[in-house]
Amino acid sequence: MAADQLVNADDLEAPLISSAVSYHDEHRSRIRRSTSNTTSQVALIGSNLCPIESLDYELIENDFLKQDWRSRGPGHIVRYIILKWTLCFLVGVLSGGVGFFNNLAVENIAGVKFVITSNMMLARKFGWAFGVFAGTNFVLLMFASMITTFISPAAAGSGIPEVKAYLNGVDAPDIFSLKTFFVKVRFSEVSDVDVSSTQQVVGCIAAVSSSLYVGKAGPMIHTSACIASILGQGGSRKYKLTCKWLRYFKNDRDRRDLVTCGSGAGVAAAFRAPVGGVLFALECVSSWWRSALLWRAFFTTAVVAVILRALIDICNSGKCGLFGKGGLIMFDVTSANVTYHLIDLPPVLVLGVIGGILGSLYNFLLEKVLRVYTLINEKGHVYKLLLAASVSIFTSCCLFGLPWLASCKRCPAGLSEACPSIGRSGNFKKFQCAPDHYNDLASLFFNTNDDAIRNLYSAGTDNVFQKSSVFLFFIASYFLGIISYGLAVPSGLFVPVILTGATYGRLVGMLMGSHSTLNHGLFAVLGSASLLGGSMRMTVSVCVIILELTNNLLLLPLVMLVLLISKTVADVFNADVYDMLVKLKGLPYLEAHAEPYMRQLTVGDVVGGPLQIFNGVEKVSNIVHVLKTTGHHGFPVVDEPPFSSSPVLFGLILRAHLLVLLKKKTFLHARTLASIDVSEQFSAEDFAKRGSGKHENIEGIDLTAEEMDMYVDLHPYTNTSPYTVVETMSLAKALILFREVGLRHLLVIPKSSSRAPVVGILTRHDFMPEHILGTHPFLLQSRWKTIRLGKSNLIEIFSGLC
Amino acid sequence: MAADQLVNADDLEAPLISSAVSYHDEHRSRIRRSTSNTTSQVALIGSNLCPIESLDYELIENDFLKQDWRSRGPGHIVRYIILKWTLCFLVGVLSGGVGFFNNLAVENIAGVKFVITSNMMLARKFGWAFGVFAGTNFVLLMFASMITTFISPAAAGSGIPEVKAYLNGVDAPDIFSLKTFFVKVRFSEVSDVDVSSTQQVVGCIAAVSSSLYVGKAGPMIHTSACIASILGQGGSRKYKLTCKWLRYFKNDRDRRDLVTCGSGAGVAAAFRAPVGGVLFALECVSSWWRSALLWRAFFTTAVVAVILRALIDICNSGKCGLFGKGGLIMFDVTSANVTYHLIDLPPVLVLGVIGGILGSLYNFLLEKVLRVYTLINEKGHVYKLLLAASVSIFTSCCLFGLPWLASCKRCPAGLSEACPSIGRSGNFKKFQCAPDHYNDLASLFFNTNDDAIRNLYSAGTDNVFQKSSVFLFFIASYFLGIISYGLAVPSGLFVPVILTGATYGRLVGMLMGSHSTLNHGLFAVLGSASLLGGSMRMTVSVCVIILELTNNLLLLPLVMLVLLISKTVADVFNADVYDMLVKLKGLPYLEAHAEPYMRQLTVGDVVGGPLQIFNGVEKVSNIVHVLKTTGHHGFPVVDEPPFSSSPVLFGLILRAHLLVLLKKKTFLHARTLASIDVSEQFSAEDFAKRGSGKHENIEGIDLTAEEMDMYVDLHPYTNTSPYTVVETMSLAKALILFREVGLRHLLVIPKSSSRAPVVGILTRHDFMPEHILGTHPFLLQSRWKTIRLGKSNLIEIFSGLC
Repeated sequence: MAADQLVNADDLEAPLISSAVSYHDEHRSRIRRSTSNTTSQVALIGSNLCPIESLDYELIENDFLKQDWRSRGPGHIVRYIILKWTLCFLVGVLSGGVGFFNNLAVENIAGVKFVITSNMMLARKFGWAFGVFAGTNFVLLMFASMITTFISPAAAGSGIPEVKAYLNGVDAPDIFSLKTFFVKVRFSEVSDVDVSSTQQVVGCIAAVSSSLYVGKAGPMIHTSACIASILGQGGSRKYKLTCKWLRYFKNDRDRRDLVTCGSGAGVAAAFRAPVGGVLFALECVSSWWRSALLWRAFFTTAVVAVILRALIDICNSGKCGLFGKGGLIMFDVTSANVTYHLIDLPPVLVLGVIGGILGSLYNFLLEKVLRVYTLINEKGHVYKLLLAASVSIFTSCCLFGLPWLASCKRCPAGLSEACPSIGRSGNFKKFQCAPDHYNDLASLFFNTNDDAIRNLYSAGTDNVFQKSSVFLFFIASYFLGIISYGLAVPSGLFVPVILTGATYGRLVGMLMGSHSTLNHGLFAVLGSASLLGGSMRMTVSVCVIILELTNNLLLLPLVMLVLLISKTVADVFNADVYDMLVKLKGLPYLEAHAEPYMRQLTVGDVVGGPLQIFNGVEKVSNIVHVLKTTGHHGFPVVDEPPFSSSPVLFGLILRAHLLVLLKKKTFLHARTLASIDVSEQFSAEDFAKRGSGKHENIEGIDLTAEEMDMYVDLHPYTNTSPYTVVETMSLAKALILFREVGLRHLLVIPKSSSRAPVVGILTRHDFMPEHILGTHPFLLQSRWKTIRLGKSNLIEIFSGLC
Repeated sequence: MAADQLVNADDLEAPLISSAVSYHDEHRSRIRRSTSNTTSQVALIGSNLCPIESLDYELIENDFLKQDWRSRGPGHIVRYIILKWTLCFLVGVLSGGVGFFNNLAVENIAGVKFVITSNMMLARKFGWAFGVFAGTNFVLLMFASMITTFISPAAAGSGIPEVKAYLNGVDAPDIFSLKTFFVKVRFSEVSDVDVSSTQQVVGCIAAVSSSLYVGKAGPMIHTSACIASILGQGGSRKYKLTCKWLRYFKNDRDRRDLVTCGSGAGVAAAFRAPVGGVLFALECVSSWWRSALLWRAFFTTAVVAVILRALIDICNSGKCGLFGKGGLIMFDVTSANVTYHLIDLPPVLVLGVIGGILGSLYNFLLEKVLRVYTLINEKGHVYKLLLAASVSIFTSCCLFGLPWLASCKRCPAGLSEACPSIGRSGNFKKFQCAPDHYNDLASLFFNTNDDAIRNLYSAGTDNVFQKSSVFLFFIASYFLGIISYGLAVPSGLFVPVILTGATYGRLVGMLMGSHSTLNHGLFAVLGSASLLGGSMRMTVSVCVIILELTNNLLLLPLVMLVLLISKTVADVFNADVYDMLVKLKGLPYLEAHAEPYMRQLTVGDVVGGPLQIFNGVEKVSNIVHVLKTTGHHGFPVVDEPPFSSSPVLFGLILRAHLLVLLKKKTFLHARTLASIDVSEQFSAEDFAKRGSGKHENIEGIDLTAEEMDMYVDLHPYTNTSPYTVVETMSLAKALILFREVGLRHLLVIPKSSSRAPVVGILTRHDFMPEHILGTHPFLLQSRWKTIRLGKSNLIEIFSGLC
């Protein structure tokens, strides 16, 4: 409980002070050390080389801002509302546009690749075909991997965990921007963040086009969230036009809302599922939700839907190259009248149970693979690229090699489409077969993921595929999906899981044979649902997304049933995939519920001391010293005689606001209250929160010796309504307050009146299980803890009830 | 700020003490008085004759419960989880069953009525037909009105406002149970609450069958919430079997969750819209939401969907009388391929704008009518019945009389269905027309609402209706819907609004003529959406419900667009209909956002004193005196010397727990700490929260003079972790804490250490605008307040940003 512990307690809050690099390393090793208490070998993946900072969703109520707020007229509010909706509209338009462009590019790049190789296959130049196929894949993936590695490492992976953490209040700056030297030099004209999202789009297109088993949904969500964040920050200095208006948006709350809308727009753009997008943002990504936000997210996704519709209408006239019917997966399960009876229930139940097991196994294997990949990736850029290269070559070999194992089938008679297929789409790839024959496995392997899913979902194709082919494809896609995710490329999990699930479902349908009246396409849809439920553990949103993808509402009860079963089964084994990724990335995610053992502790047990406190009127040199020597982001302000009869807590002042004060240098010569009108010296904009990762730096402020001896009146800038808890409050209930209200700092006040008016400050870090169990190891012995360690997931259910 | 104000501040919390009746009247008049400051003539409708009490969602953490909790094994948790899901399952099954029975009964009762009158019309016995029609309607409505008036007044209206208020933390006991003398005598064998929900179902069936323009969705939601509440309370004493298990459910948090699931199940049962049900519960009804709850609500509605499916399957074999294709409105908009182009956008925009205006006008007129009805209903039971009778006769006259105004149309050639229609359904009612002709207006008027909606929604019927007929029907249904709602019968708003909206949409479609390529059925769907958006102001849930009703996902972008426009337009004029009803009923609903003027006040400004405080070890007579003379539900417990060196806040004890202590009579002879093991004297069940409206009464506890002189050690039963705010905290931020965490009591502690350790207690009432503006009238002068009074709705947007 000494000074060093206090630093621990607050250094999640540490800013980019002088020794930024050394801090990162220390921070990183500390997290690894503390988490290694519970789970061995926790590695940090992705964007953890940057300082992780908390976001502040609390309302700052200080005299200055109150005065400023009172002076504002209704015009301010009207402008704010217009801005809010305009930004949502822009997020929708841009997300829709990017999503469409993404699909268009993938369809065309992959399409050209498949057309060329198919033609070579027709000419029976198998070696050439493989060379072109594998070579293209290799080049595309290397391109994606290189821009990810060298330009924006934060773009690797799906990005959903980062967005989820951001909306929980964790701001790892590189999530939404790009701060590497390379970009700063080469793209100095362009806003940092623009490049970040642009390159993510490009990387995603390249990765998906390279036939890697990665999806575009995750990166799409990340990209849309990026767009929202950029717009919320008002772009860079280039866009002076909007700056005046965007000052109304300079706080974390508004940005959080916009990013939530953005993540919904991402799903809407990826799957053309506007309602699913809203629900996804609600169920899976966001940590706080308001009814008003539902409406705004809905508006954003509606805009996406309209934009996509308009762009696809343009493409339908044939101006989009190979885009055609493909792109933007939208699988009409053509049998309009789905009928099912009681006899169909057992197979569906079996499907759900096995899907749950497969889904949790997927998560388990994915985690193992990611740990190995992390070790490799950490060795350096060359290793990252080598890893990507080997996976690319292996994938190409699988995709090209495995179809040879399937026997050729004779084309069925009376088809409406050509058999073997000509060009790039169609269910009947000729591959190596004789004329009038097709290779059913090649139809799945030698195709884009979207087309493969469409093939599997389509009704009336019960006899098209062979059991052996589907089985082989299932095994291959299951494992290819797992080994493809952790590479240094933008990659999503959704599409591979949907594809694998569809294959699994079709396989079950085939095995059922005549025991079920459902067609195999329907089984494929249910299989996708079961694997999504088992892996992602989402319910309502996946259900709606599946319905929007297949455009058949009659499936609803079956899809619901399968999802519920698979999620329940999978929950017995482990946590959902995004939780796992968040933990693996070492992001300090704050759960909504308190762990049971937190009820055994009071806040006094976890908070450290002594505390760094400022006086209501403080000496400049003191402030500078404290800011330089600590990493805290908030400081209690205490009034002492002569300003009050006894020491009284006045409020909490933020580091950022102190820096603004120091920079303006409006100091006092003596320890007196400032008599001048503060609104003349500052505007609200001065105190606005700057964009993610953009910080004022105490080192950058030069003060003369004379100035150092002067005083600052902190009263007008101190948040006079900080949330407080008494030191005897249980930690569990403090966590509920902290989480529900969205705090960054929670002041702890003493129970007895004879002590100093403030005991300490709780931050996000103090509620992390690793921290608590590290300082109170006896809790590990308690029965509850044992249950938790044994079955990390069951405790979630358990603790939800406490 | 004197003692009387404190009583004011807390008397929303007043229990059923001795003078219950006088309290009600006083309470009622006080609310009316205080609200009349801002809005004149506020009347209280429905169940306001019972005390309104707050619910307590806070975790009670006292030594006794902690000890009890530690002594419980994992078995407890497993049982709890099983119970939780079993209850949800039961709620789903029962809701599905009731919903189906509801529809079945309505279809058969109304069906028989229409068949008989139609046959009379065919025989041209017009007078007899009208007599039978009006007579049946009259008898049905009188039956519904009488059981509502005499058995359960709380069942009047839609019930959604009450459920919404319950989930916000307002417990007006009669919401979910029935406490009138009549039932207690006559139905003493049966559990109170059973009767309440049963009779609501019966009343709803009768009211809907009587051709009144009321819906079944609202009562269905209320009924399902009732079912959930009854199950959560463990039924009555009759069901001893489940009591042992249900003790795990004896708190408000769990019941709140179950009622949330129940309200979702209600929508799912009413519209066969499981996803829509979940979203409705989320968007419209609930005030708190967790991700885990989403899953549970989804499970509940999935069960409803499966049950409905199974029951309908049974009916499809023709065993359900006239149920047939009707019932459970599910309107397949048959044109599978909806195509729309840019040219269709302007009509859709116009539809949305006018729909928004019509919707807000609907709310406005409804409020006026309700105020008049309240004045009439308050005069006594006879007036209630007379009002219902006159509306019934008027409605019958309209339905039977207006079709005569329409000219007969010749049956179109080449129809697949009979023209004129035979039996009860079909688009071509003959009414008074010659053979081979039909009366298009009678097809709408002389039908159940469900069938009328289906007729309007159906595609390929662009030439079936005449403009004048549709216009007449629109006007009639608009106003009949408004005058039917406030009667003393269970009545919903959803179906009338859908019906009116569909008519409006079709009218717009007809007026557009060849300017739009959309068919009129589609226009009807969009019209429904626009009126729902304008009146209910729901977005995502209405959108999904409409899609689930019409089973056509391709409509999505258009429906979204229409909803967004109509909601935006309507929001300019007034608040949504449920908000209006909640306000009209005088329920102290706590908004999620703080009003702007609350930032100008501190909690010290609204909290009163002196406060009733207990010592850690308190004299019995003191406790009894305080409990008898105050209505507070929570009391701060302060330790004084010799138990501590200076007065220190120990925690908060609840009235209910004090009553348990007094009843057990485990008193001490001297002012010392109790040395006995508390867990031997009490079980957790003793402290479990009893069902809604069931209270222990201080009057019922007999204590001897000797016992009155003894002491009680309150320490083990005092919640040691109450949430606290410092008195200088702004009221706005205290409200956020209060609302987000779901509190009933919020302790206010002093800023300066020289004062008593607790200053006061904030309850729900202290955050009510009426209370605040009543005690701080100067706020009315402020600019923000003026805006608020001018446009009550815009402020919602305004304050959302603060």
